[in-house]
Amino acid sequence: MEAEYRFTRRHIISLDDLSVQDIDYILRVAESFKEISERPIKKVPTLRGKTVINLFFEPSTRTRLSFEVAAKRLSADTFNIAPSSSSTTKGETLVDTACNLAAMKPDIIIIRHPRSGSPRLLARHINASVLNAGDGTNEHPSQALLDLMTVREKKGRIEGLKVAIVGDITHSRVAHSNIIGFSKMGATVAVSGPATLLPTGIEQMGAVVCSSVEEAVADADVVMALRIQKERQRDPLIPSLREYANFFGITTRTLAGAKPDAMIMHPGPINRGVEMDPAIADGPRSVILEQVTNGVAVRMALLYLIMGGD
Amino acid sequence: MEAEYRFTRRHIISLDDLSVQDIDYILRVAESFKEISERPIKKVPTLRGKTVINLFFEPSTRTRLSFEVAAKRLSADTFNIAPSSSSTTKGETLVDTACNLAAMKPDIIIIRHPRSGSPRLLARHINASVLNAGDGTNEHPSQALLDLMTVREKKGRIEGLKVAIVGDITHSRVAHSNIIGFSKMGATVAVSGPATLLPTGIEQMGAVVCSSVEEAVADADVVMALRIQKERQRDPLIPSLREYANFFGITTRTLAGAKPDAMIMHPGPINRGVEMDPAIADGPRSVILEQVTNGVAVRMALLYLIMGGD
Amino acid sequence: MEAEYRFTRRHIISLDDLSVQDIDYILRVAESFKEISERPIKKVPTLRGKTVINLFFEPSTRTRLSFEVAAKRLSADTFNIAPSSSSTTKGETLVDTACNLAAMKPDIIIIRHPRSGSPRLLARHINASVLNAGDGTNEHPSQALLDLMTVREKKGRIEGLKVAIVGDITHSRVAHSNIIGFSKMGATVAVSGPATLLPTGIEQMGAVVCSSVEEAVADADVVMALRIQKERQRDPLIPSLREYANFFGITTRTLAGAKPDAMIMHPGPINRGVEMDPAIADGPRSVILEQVTNGVAVRMALLYLIMGGD
Repeated sequence: MEAEYRFTRRHIISLDDLSVQDIDYILRVAESFKEISERPIKKVPTLRGKTVINLFFEPSTRTRLSFEVAAKRLSADTFNIAPSSSSTTKGETLVDTACNLAAMKPDIIIIRHPRSGSPRLLARHINASVLNAGDGTNEHPSQALLDLMTVREKKGRIEGLKVAIVGDITHSRVAHSNIIGFSKMGATVAVSGPATLLPTGIEQMGAVVCSSVEEAVADADVVMALRIQKERQRDPLIPSLREYANFFGITTRTLAGAKPDAMIMHPGPINRGVEMDPAIADGPRSVILEQVTNGVAVRMALLYLIMGGD
Repeated sequence: MEAEYRFTRRHIISLDDLSVQDIDYILRVAESFKEISERPIKKVPTLRGKTVINLFFEPSTRTRLSFEVAAKRLSADTFNIAPSSSSTTKGETLVDTACNLAAMKPDIIIIRHPRSGSPRLLARHINASVLNAGDGTNEHPSQALLDLMTVREKKGRIEGLKVAIVGDITHSRVAHSNIIGFSKMGATVAVSGPATLLPTGIEQMGAVVCSSVEEAVADADVVMALRIQKERQRDPLIPSLREYANFFGITTRTLAGAKPDAMIMHPGPINRGVEMDPAIADGPRSVILEQVTNGVAVRMALLYLIMGGD
Repeated sequence: MEAEYRFTRRHIISLDDLSVQDIDYILRVAESFKEISERPIKKVPTLRGKTVINLFFEPSTRTRLSFEVAAKRLSADTFNIAPSSSSTTKGETLVDTACNLAAMKPDIIIIRHPRSGSPRLLARHINASVLNAGDGTNEHPSQALLDLMTVREKKGRIEGLKVAIVGDITHSRVAHSNIIGFSKMGATVAVSGPATLLPTGIEQMGAVVCSSVEEAVADADVVMALRIQKERQRDPLIPSLREYANFFGITTRTLAGAKPDAMIMHPGPINRGVEMDPAIADGPRSVILEQVTNGVAVRMALLYLIMGGD
């Protein structure tokens, strides 16, 4: 049966759009691409002559760089646009901006945008492939795929694992994509966070809401801390950083009930001492930097596959 | 005779510098380059190992990107400099900045600058080829050339056509280059706009000044709306946007007297509902996105030709 | 003996780390690379498939561009990060930022940072090669190497020359690297500047402190003016620009005692009429633009050599 499977997605917008087979295939391609980044000459001609635009409406170092590295290692031509200093500030609509970019005949537009749903809107209006690099509080699919890759690499499987996600579940696109992805691949996802930051209805995405970090982490194979956005610190929904660290920071104490070999994950950048004790972040169970390495491989796989992959 | 023609320009500063034969040749090269952007591998080795610097003293997404796409599709190495955050803010003169860049041995410097005349100044001081990507209120030659290409592509010719240009004629570098270019190629150019924005002496550039939009548009083969710069909205020269839209916006009503197959153009980005009714901008006669596509082809042709073109 | 010499540095952090043989070898490689920038096709495949990250925490046009040009002429893939708009503003430590970048498997990270010592810190924590592009008031090794190259090219040697450096010695990383470099290569370095800007202990770096510009410049083979940072003009340590120009600006008068063929140098960008009379900056003895040209060659050599150079 599997011999007949073909990856046919032209856009990567949401984990919801991807089948179990799609995800499995993306991860296998990513695993095979990973060693390219270890070669003396880190470059294959796969996407030579393809035009890849990074359209980032929010500041980003690591995600933008990760996509750019992925694209260049596949020999694509890359272009960076940060439209704060551009025509969107001149009153142009997102669809007009996108249609104008599309008229230059790019192959792929990678978009990060503060408004949820923007990448889907784009994909409806343009011919190029659209890759969601984070849209508002909605989704961040490449992050979830790199997390899935990292877990499968370390644990050998995803099915049957317990994954605890701790933090601001309501506003985290990383959490949303991971809840969908890990649930779809057969893991149990337990979430915990300040009561004001646990959305009602999150169970429908496949998550079990826990009333304490300890409960979420109990017997977990994977513990993922989310980033607290200091920018939002004055937001009355967010407790003080000190209180947050005290109740929801990942420490030896909160990890006491997890499996002894539980993997520790964080999407970065870390607020050390807030979401996680530095000793945990730098400890033997942390796979935080491995996540970053796998991010390049997953993004290479996505760029390759939406271009037709052959 | 034509067999003996050779393109010998090393800089592209103004439409004034180009002969009818030069413009014709640029458009023919651009037409032949256009299909490169439709290939699966959008890249030819023509400018491999050439150094092309985008030196943009004004923010720009589309023009900068269009030049960068054009350069990379010809395999040049491209470099972006946006000197707001750079040494010009440290008190360096434009000529010193240019001489310093030139000392790194670039082949082409593409410059956008708020002060009219800057590209000409540069070309006098440095060895590299200079390409004007818009200087103050003076000229924007690559925009005029892509407009000429788009008209010739759709109408089969430029000579004998009537072109109406509507908007802020005084401050529009797009208008200035187009008036020179279309006049030179044998079209009649009629301009209309708020009385405060119609410069005295514009007739010398080759334009017919009309007292109403209806008069300018009457029997026109091409109707081009200029962008109203909202940044300048408090300028007492500019009427309110609502009034502007009412009197000078391109609508079914203002187009009533134009030829039935009149092409609708706009240099972008559009303020929808101000310079143009969205139904017109998205309608069957609009070639606005085709202009963007041709922009890449024209810029490829310019980069190729000023490098010696062989 | 020389046949056995091998360049083994993996990082370029400080002139202090480099032996006389290292410097001599870097300059010889740079001299051989210089003509690449004069070719019609300015590109060699030496670093194809290498990942070079420009990590600039301070704004920079020329140094960033010079490194990017150097890297691309060696066929490396280059990436620009200006972390003001990035995760360091989100509270991440420099080491975390660096480790995250390193996880994407770059070969070289070129860093400019306002805090002295940052490149050394980075090199201790990551696998990639680190190249210091200026750290605080500490060092700017590639600038000193291009200055050494320019002097050796014009004078045929460095040993035995007298080099005068005039300006803010205390805060100039250019001065510090040059004092170390020229002293190490056998030149005498004389420094002069406002008394408040002459650090105590500078003699230990190898410089002779002079009480007047005239004394520093007397019989000099090389006169190097440092940049006055107008940003620091309100600093009570800096005299008014007018007074500075009067006492420390390089003019025909201050140069009267120098050797008739003394080379005039400046790291740029120049404040014309402050550090130097325009007639001197543009005069026949000035090598200021040659410094910029050699900057590309020296940076090509450094990138090549720290990658193993073969």
